[in-house]
Amino acid sequence: MSDTSNTVVTAAFLIIGNEILSGRTKDLNLNVLATALVEKGIRMREARVVADDEDEIVGAVQALSKRYDHVFTSGGIGPTHDDISCDCIAKAFGRPVIRNPGALRLLQVHYERSGIELNEARLRMANTPEGATLIDNPVSAAPGFTIENVHVMAGVPRIFEAMVKELLPRLVGGAPVRSISISCPLGEGIVAAGLGAIQAEHPDLEVGSYPYFRAGKIGTTLVARGSDDADLEAAAEKIRALIRQNGGEPIEV
Amino acid sequence: MSDTSNTVVTAAFLIIGNEILSGRTKDLNLNVLATALVEKGIRMREARVVADDEDEIVGAVQALSKRYDHVFTSGGIGPTHDDISCDCIAKAFGRPVIRNPGALRLLQVHYERSGIELNEARLRMANTPEGATLIDNPVSAAPGFTIENVHVMAGVPRIFEAMVKELLPRLVGGAPVRSISISCPLGEGIVAAGLGAIQAEHPDLEVGSYPYFRAGKIGTTLVARGSDDADLEAAAEKIRALIRQNGGEPIEV
Repeated sequence: MSDTSNTVVTAAFLIIGNEILSGRTKDLNLNVLATALVEKGIRMREARVVADDEDEIVGAVQALSKRYDHVFTSGGIGPTHDDISCDCIAKAFGRPVIRNPGALRLLQVHYERSGIELNEARLRMANTPEGATLIDNPVSAAPGFTIENVHVMAGVPRIFEAMVKELLPRLVGGAPVRSISISCPLGEGIVAAGLGAIQAEHPDLEVGSYPYFRAGKIGTTLVARGSDDADLEAAAEKIRALIRQNGGEPIEV
Repeated sequence: MSDTSNTVVTAAFLIIGNEILSGRTKDLNLNVLATALVEKGIRMREARVVADDEDEIVGAVQALSKRYDHVFTSGGIGPTHDDISCDCIAKAFGRPVIRNPGALRLLQVHYERSGIELNEARLRMANTPEGATLIDNPVSAAPGFTIENVHVMAGVPRIFEAMVKELLPRLVGGAPVRSISISCPLGEGIVAAGLGAIQAEHPDLEVGSYPYFRAGKIGTTLVARGSDDADLEAAAEKIRALIRQNGGEPIEV
């Protein structure tokens, strides 16, 4: 991947876990990753949630890793029987699972320090596909890993966030994407035609419209996103004018 | 689909929207739908988030609607140029888009009552694929719709939730899935081997383990899910015993 600033770098996020699909747990990681990737200039094109099921995980990893520059995963890397991410991702790339010496050392130091037994179940957390690079876990030691273009991280939000912070500086970002958001106390339907015209005049930008209800009142946030600052500012100026033409006052958000 | 209580009914959720992938908006709908489907006995097997892009939406709708009994979608049904869900879902099934007479009536009544002009942009919200059944929108009138096995709903959480509530009573559920959750102040690694054995003894259940950090202390919630109450209670009793054997006190959650 070249380091030029106008490269488009794409990504997908694969959330692994029955608990998200059953509603037991609310996913918090998608928004954390999405926000961090925008800052890095990496564009998340797709996210999927799959169950703790070998065929599902292998299939999703193969499909997404072929299609995007990076795949980030969360969940399934703990010590219990339902933690099958490592095995599945190794299988997706036809690689053997090994006891990773670096991961083993991290666990040995951590468990010796905490006076907790590094039993057989916990030792599983030292497994990675052969050839993996570790992702540090400053919270509870058991590392994530990168294999090919897949970055395998924990599901626990505090650990996931720490791993993302550790991992992202190592990746090459693309053209940074900026956005300008402008709210107004108008319904979407009033600005729809004008906004469609602005999108047509700025085909390299993504122009979006997001209605909201706050304190019983409707309003709309109009958003322009893109990597060319002048193009973006020109579109934003048209959005402000559109709002004023329809009797609203633009609110920069 | 038969109405017997031991049928397994499956579903996928397709979230349509750039704003989720860019981190601008946090999805709140997945958890709402997942929770409602569990109560209905419908099993969500997969969720995807895709951009406001025709090829992405058409591809995902075709893949998911073939694979699962139901597909629920959120987002992209408003009046603006980035609201392309109706056109894409019609295309996925090779059906024409029509101005739906029932939807048109709902909009006419709503906009006449509110004294707002039903302009060309808003009239787009009366479009559906030919043959669709409407899903009522008690919040802002513009309806969702069901076409084939796909249920197309709004992305705004308040409207999405209202549409789910309106839609679900019309669907035939499967065997209800119950879960028992038991927390303990133990690390996952202590209970991992015992929990794996319990899963092996109860292959029809999903036995899961979810670590947490609260007030600086680690703990684990052990969860058994399934549709056979006796099987579930037997596994839960073993989970309680496993926790006690390891010096913990089970906390029913």
